[in-house]
Amino acid sequence: MIEDKNQQRTDLSTLGEFGLIDHLTKNFKINHTSTVKSIGDDAAVLNFEKKKIVVTTDLLVEGVHFDLSYVPLKHLGYKSVVVNLSDVYAMNAKATQITVSVAVSNRFPLEALEDLYAGIETAAKLYNIDVVGGDTSSSTKGLIISVTAIGELEKDEEVYRAGAKPNDLLVVTGDLGGAYMGLQVLEREKEVFKVNPNNQPDLDAYSYIIERQLKPEARQDIVKLLADLEVKPTSMIDISDGLSSEVLHLCKHSDVGCDLYEEKIPLDPVVISSCEEFNIDSTMVALNGGEDYELLFTISQDDFPKIKANPNLTIIGHIREKEAGAHLVTRADSRIPLKAQGWKNFES
Amino acid sequence: MIEDKNQQRTDLSTLGEFGLIDHLTKNFKINHTSTVKSIGDDAAVLNFEKKKIVVTTDLLVEGVHFDLSYVPLKHLGYKSVVVNLSDVYAMNAKATQITVSVAVSNRFPLEALEDLYAGIETAAKLYNIDVVGGDTSSSTKGLIISVTAIGELEKDEEVYRAGAKPNDLLVVTGDLGGAYMGLQVLEREKEVFKVNPNNQPDLDAYSYIIERQLKPEARQDIVKLLADLEVKPTSMIDISDGLSSEVLHLCKHSDVGCDLYEEKIPLDPVVISSCEEFNIDSTMVALNGGEDYELLFTISQDDFPKIKANPNLTIIGHIREKEAGAHLVTRADSRIPLKAQGWKNFES
Repeated sequence: MIEDKNQQRTDLSTLGEFGLIDHLTKNFKINHTSTVKSIGDDAAVLNFEKKKIVVTTDLLVEGVHFDLSYVPLKHLGYKSVVVNLSDVYAMNAKATQITVSVAVSNRFPLEALEDLYAGIETAAKLYNIDVVGGDTSSSTKGLIISVTAIGELEKDEEVYRAGAKPNDLLVVTGDLGGAYMGLQVLEREKEVFKVNPNNQPDLDAYSYIIERQLKPEARQDIVKLLADLEVKPTSMIDISDGLSSEVLHLCKHSDVGCDLYEEKIPLDPVVISSCEEFNIDSTMVALNGGEDYELLFTISQDDFPKIKANPNLTIIGHIREKEAGAHLVTRADSRIPLKAQGWKNFES
Repeated sequence: MIEDKNQQRTDLSTLGEFGLIDHLTKNFKINHTSTVKSIGDDAAVLNFEKKKIVVTTDLLVEGVHFDLSYVPLKHLGYKSVVVNLSDVYAMNAKATQITVSVAVSNRFPLEALEDLYAGIETAAKLYNIDVVGGDTSSSTKGLIISVTAIGELEKDEEVYRAGAKPNDLLVVTGDLGGAYMGLQVLEREKEVFKVNPNNQPDLDAYSYIIERQLKPEARQDIVKLLADLEVKPTSMIDISDGLSSEVLHLCKHSDVGCDLYEEKIPLDPVVISSCEEFNIDSTMVALNGGEDYELLFTISQDDFPKIKANPNLTIIGHIREKEAGAHLVTRADSRIPLKAQGWKNFES
């Protein structure tokens, strides 16, 4: 599906490990005063003065977390950074540094790694992140990317999964289900391509959901918005595995129940129309689709006036006592217990 | 070679991601006051007060960095932590936290991951490290481990690769070449085992070098020793790729040359005897063997009285002006330019 217009293939062995990492990261800029020493020593040195920090890490494996038959390497580099930053923002922190480790089999030429790192660099620039460490090595099969992200916290601004209280409002950013439906479109086109490699798909109508899948964004803006609105969520998590799974995490960690209203779940028109086309229930997609990288949080009802009518935020339910359980309240007003079905990587 | 005495095989899908990471890390203890929030949220929260920190990361891939036909999983877990801590100590820092991400194919049962995490836990206990994050996911092939280590620095105590000055002494800890010779013994036994699986090898004579390969230690003690001796190295690096490669790194980063004396290179008697047995030159093994995880550093000549006669430290040469180049001075008193041959992962 993705035509390789880059005919040049430079073997990785021509550079060796040290030449390679120097080459790939030579344009990376350092912007944060907290970065004392970046790539090029045994470890990076960082100085956050008195600030607390957050640390999160993710490992992405070809064939499990991404499919290079329809994911351009530049997008993959970008996404591998973004999914980690999303975890930093979910702590109500400001992302500042990342390290990136990459392992590739010898089927990848230098130009492929250059594309991957171009995506990493683009994300680093846009989110104002210093790339302070990492390495490259070989793998026996496929591409493996490990990113660790570090962020800094203003004094006591961290927000955990625990902290939601009965009567708190349940709020979600953006809209849901787009990344999953984008994946369905890409998988379908992959099958079409297998049958007819000359077919040129017209994907314009799906561009929003395809972008949600291939080039998601992390909600850096929400951390700033909440600070500007002087709202500190009582609990927060990012939506990587689907709304249902994340609501259950908040409830479990906070020792509470909740009512989630089906009619309130924010859906983009393209998600709705593609769900109709694929004959999938859009609520199921929003609940279990995953990879939306929106933020889910709870706020005290006292903060309602500060967030109401904000186009970035949708109130989708409220927290209840633990004994009430966690339920989806359907449009037909029936109550269905929420189940986590998002994460299927170990099921085969 | 390694008999699987553990007959129980529990499929990973019985736990799912969240149950799995909870299960594997449930015995992990938190000891550092700098660990505010450990595993179980979107990110760990750490508080180093005014201290600077160091961050380093490594990605280990089955078939490239380790061979499970002779590496027990518990040892592998231990080693994957130690190799990262070694980078922290090479900055003259105190290691405090790690995150661990693991991806495994479905050929691994739960019991295999329990062994791996038992090794991680053992290393964390011995080196007094909090395991504060990480995840598990599936891979399409083999085992992949990514560890990020964090350490803290007392005010301005960091030591870089840059900083060595002409006339500084070049010092190495412990002895060299053991890990490489241990690997040679294990590779030989693997070949023997392929021919005769009932052969019970007697590896007692090689136990020192096999342990250097399978269960290396990081020189935490040296950071403390140097502080006690009130010696701050002018430059430092850990020896992961072989002495030759690391000396060249120090010279390049410090913009200096050096003379390294062959007769001074510390070798264990078992390394010498196994080199004779395998008909390999022991100096070549020490220069290019790698994986010894000793520390290489330079000190001002003024500090010589503080370190002399210390059994942990060997002076193996001295720094010269850049124009003099970097040379090995042989026992026959000839000068051979040093070459980095240690890292061959991209050569096939």
